[in-house]
Amino acid sequence: MWVCCFHELADLNYELTMRKIIIGVMGPGEKATAVDMQKAYELGKLIATQGWVLLTGGRNVGVMDAASRGAKSVDGLTIGILRDHDNDGISEAVDIAIFTDMGNARNNINVVSSDVVIACGMGAGTASEVSLALKANKKVILLSVDEETKNFFQKLVSKNLYCANDVDNAIAITKEILA
Amino acid sequence: MWVCCFHELADLNYELTMRKIIIGVMGPGEKATAVDMQKAYELGKLIATQGWVLLTGGRNVGVMDAASRGAKSVDGLTIGILRDHDNDGISEAVDIAIFTDMGNARNNINVVSSDVVIACGMGAGTASEVSLALKANKKVILLSVDEETKNFFQKLVSKNLYCANDVDNAIAITKEILA
Amino acid sequence: MWVCCFHELADLNYELTMRKIIIGVMGPGEKATAVDMQKAYELGKLIATQGWVLLTGGRNVGVMDAASRGAKSVDGLTIGILRDHDNDGISEAVDIAIFTDMGNARNNINVVSSDVVIACGMGAGTASEVSLALKANKKVILLSVDEETKNFFQKLVSKNLYCANDVDNAIAITKEILA
Amino acid sequence: MWVCCFHELADLNYELTMRKIIIGVMGPGEKATAVDMQKAYELGKLIATQGWVLLTGGRNVGVMDAASRGAKSVDGLTIGILRDHDNDGISEAVDIAIFTDMGNARNNINVVSSDVVIACGMGAGTASEVSLALKANKKVILLSVDEETKNFFQKLVSKNLYCANDVDNAIAITKEILA
Repeated sequence: MWVCCFHELADLNYELTMRKIIIGVMGPGEKATAVDMQKAYELGKLIATQGWVLLTGGRNVGVMDAASRGAKSVDGLTIGILRDHDNDGISEAVDIAIFTDMGNARNNINVVSSDVVIACGMGAGTASEVSLALKANKKVILLSVDEETKNFFQKLVSKNLYCANDVDNAIAITKEILA
Repeated sequence: MWVCCFHELADLNYELTMRKIIIGVMGPGEKATAVDMQKAYELGKLIATQGWVLLTGGRNVGVMDAASRGAKSVDGLTIGILRDHDNDGISEAVDIAIFTDMGNARNNINVVSSDVVIACGMGAGTASEVSLALKANKKVILLSVDEETKNFFQKLVSKNLYCANDVDNAIAITKEILA
Repeated sequence: MWVCCFHELADLNYELTMRKIIIGVMGPGEKATAVDMQKAYELGKLIATQGWVLLTGGRNVGVMDAASRGAKSVDGLTIGILRDHDNDGISEAVDIAIFTDMGNARNNINVVSSDVVIACGMGAGTASEVSLALKANKKVILLSVDEETKNFFQKLVSKNLYCANDVDNAIAITKEILA
Repeated sequence: MWVCCFHELADLNYELTMRKIIIGVMGPGEKATAVDMQKAYELGKLIATQGWVLLTGGRNVGVMDAASRGAKSVDGLTIGILRDHDNDGISEAVDIAIFTDMGNARNNINVVSSDVVIACGMGAGTASEVSLALKANKKVILLSVDEETKNFFQKLVSKNLYCANDVDNAIAITKEILA
C-alpha cells in the first residue's frame, strides 16, 4: 500500500533544485535574414552548453527555429511558447510546446518567463518583446543591432539594456547578469 | 406574456447599426510629459467630437487619463482596458472599464480592438503597443515623434505607419484612413 | 490657442461620473436553446432598461446575440468581448467590440469585468465562466438551472452564488447585490 | 570559423524527436484535501515514470505542488504555468516556470498545452479547467469524483470525458488515449 506522508514530502525538499534558468531568444520569423539565423543557431547551442533552458516563440521559422535547432544540436532543452493552439507550424526542435492560443499577447509571456532576453535580429514582433521586457524590468541584450535601434531602446529605458557585438559577447553578458 | 419570436429578432436587424468606431490613444503613464498630456487631452476631445469611441489603457495617470478627460469634456464615450482586476488606479474619466487581469499582455488587446492607433508620447509600454499594432497590420499614427523614433518604426514595417505634426493632423489622417 | 492647464483638469473632476455598471450575461453560443435565447433577450432588455451596460462574448449566435439584441431593442449599450481578432462572427447588436485574440482565455475577462454575472443556459464555455467568476469572488446568478447544476456550483463556492427562477427575479437579485 | 549552412540544418532533422507528451494535472490549491494530495503525488510519480512531462499550475500548494514533487521523486520533468510574474509562491518541485502574469486566464493555457488533462480533486479553478478543456476538445480524466460532478460534466460534453476510479486507472486511460 502506497502512503505519502508529510514527513516524506518534507524530506524530498533536500533533493529539489531551484527552477532552471531560462534564456529567451527573440527574433524575426519569416523575415529573419540568413545572418540572424546563423547567430540564433549559435546562440541556442551556447545557451544549451551552459546548461540553461532555451525559450523561443516556438514556430518553425526564422530565429525561433534556428535557435531551437542549435540548442538541440548539443542536446539542450527547448521551450516554445506558441501563439496558436495546435501543432501546425511548430518547430521540430521544440521539446516542450506551450500553446497559449492568445496570438501576439503571448509575447509578454515570452519575456516575463525569461531570466535574460536576447534579441537576435529585429522586426515588429521582436520590438514588442524588447519593449515588453524593458517594461517588466527584465535584462535585455541586443545582439548586433544598428546605432538607431540601440539609441531608440536606450531612450526608452536605459538601465536594463545591454548591447553585444557577437554571440560570444552575448553569452558573456548573460553570465555576468546571472552571477 | 412576453414572447421573442424569430420574426421579431429578424426585424430588429434593420434598426441595428454597425459597431462603433474605436480610436486607441496610447502613451506613457507616470512618465508622460506635460506636453504629452496636453496633446492627449486635445486628442480625446477631438476623437469624441467626431463621434468615435476612445480606447486607452484606462489608468488614472498620463496620456490614458488625459485623453479620457478630453473625451469626457465633450461628453464622449471612453473605454479603459485595464491591466489589473479592480478599481484601484482607474481613471475617473473611464466610462467602460474592461478588467483584463493580464498585465501588459493587455497591450495587444488595446491595439487589436482599435480601428486606428495613435501614439502620443513614447515609452516602453507605448513602443510595445506600436510594435504590436504594426505586427497586427493596424494603422498607426505617431504624433510629434523625433526622427529616430520615426525611422526605427519605419524600418520595422513601413506600410501602415503615419506621422502627424500635431493633433489636428492626426485627426485628419484618421479620417482619411477610415474613409 | 488651446491650452490644457492643471486647473482645468482638476475642475473636470466634478463633472465626472463613476464608471458605468456592467452586467455580464453568459450562455451557450451555437448550442443555446430557444428558451435560453428568449430569456437572454429579455435579460438584455431589462438590463438596458435599468441603465446598466450589457457585456457578453459578442458573437452572433446564441445567448450572446440574443441578450445584445434585447438591450439594443431599448437603446442600451452593449459590449462584446470577442475571442478573435476581426469582425467575422460578431453580433450586429454589439456597440463596442473588444477583440482579445485570445480564444477562450477571454472568458476570464468577461467575468472579471462584470459587476454581476448572470448565467443563462449552460455549456462548457458557460461553466468555465461561472467557475472563473466564483474563483474571482464575483457574484453569480444562475438563471433557471436544474438541481444538479445548482448543487455542483454550490459545492465549489457557496457564498457568492444566487439562483433565480425567472428573468425578473434575476434582475431583482442584481439590484440587491448592487445596492 | 563557424558556419551554419542549410544543409546542416536539414541534416539535423533526422535526429530531432517529436515534441514531448505533456500530461496536465489540475486540482485545488489551498483547499486540496490530504487525499487529493496523496493521489496527486502518486499521479506525478507515475506520469514521470512513463516518460511524460508533467504540467501543473506551478504554485507551492495543493495538488500542483504534490504532483510536481511526485514527478521529481523519480526524476521527471515538471512544468509550472504560473498566474503571476515572479518567484513568489512557486513550487520548489517545478523545473520550468512559465510566468504568464495573467491570473486565472492562464487556466486556458494549462489545458490547451496538455495532451491529456487529469482532474484530481475539485474546486472553482479546477472546474474552470475541466470546462475549458472540454470546450477545447481535450480529453479529460476525472479522478475519483462523486456522481453529481461526473453527471454535471457529462451533460456539458460527453465525448471526451473519462472517469477513473484510482490513480492506476487514470494512467491506464491516459495510455489508451495516447495510443
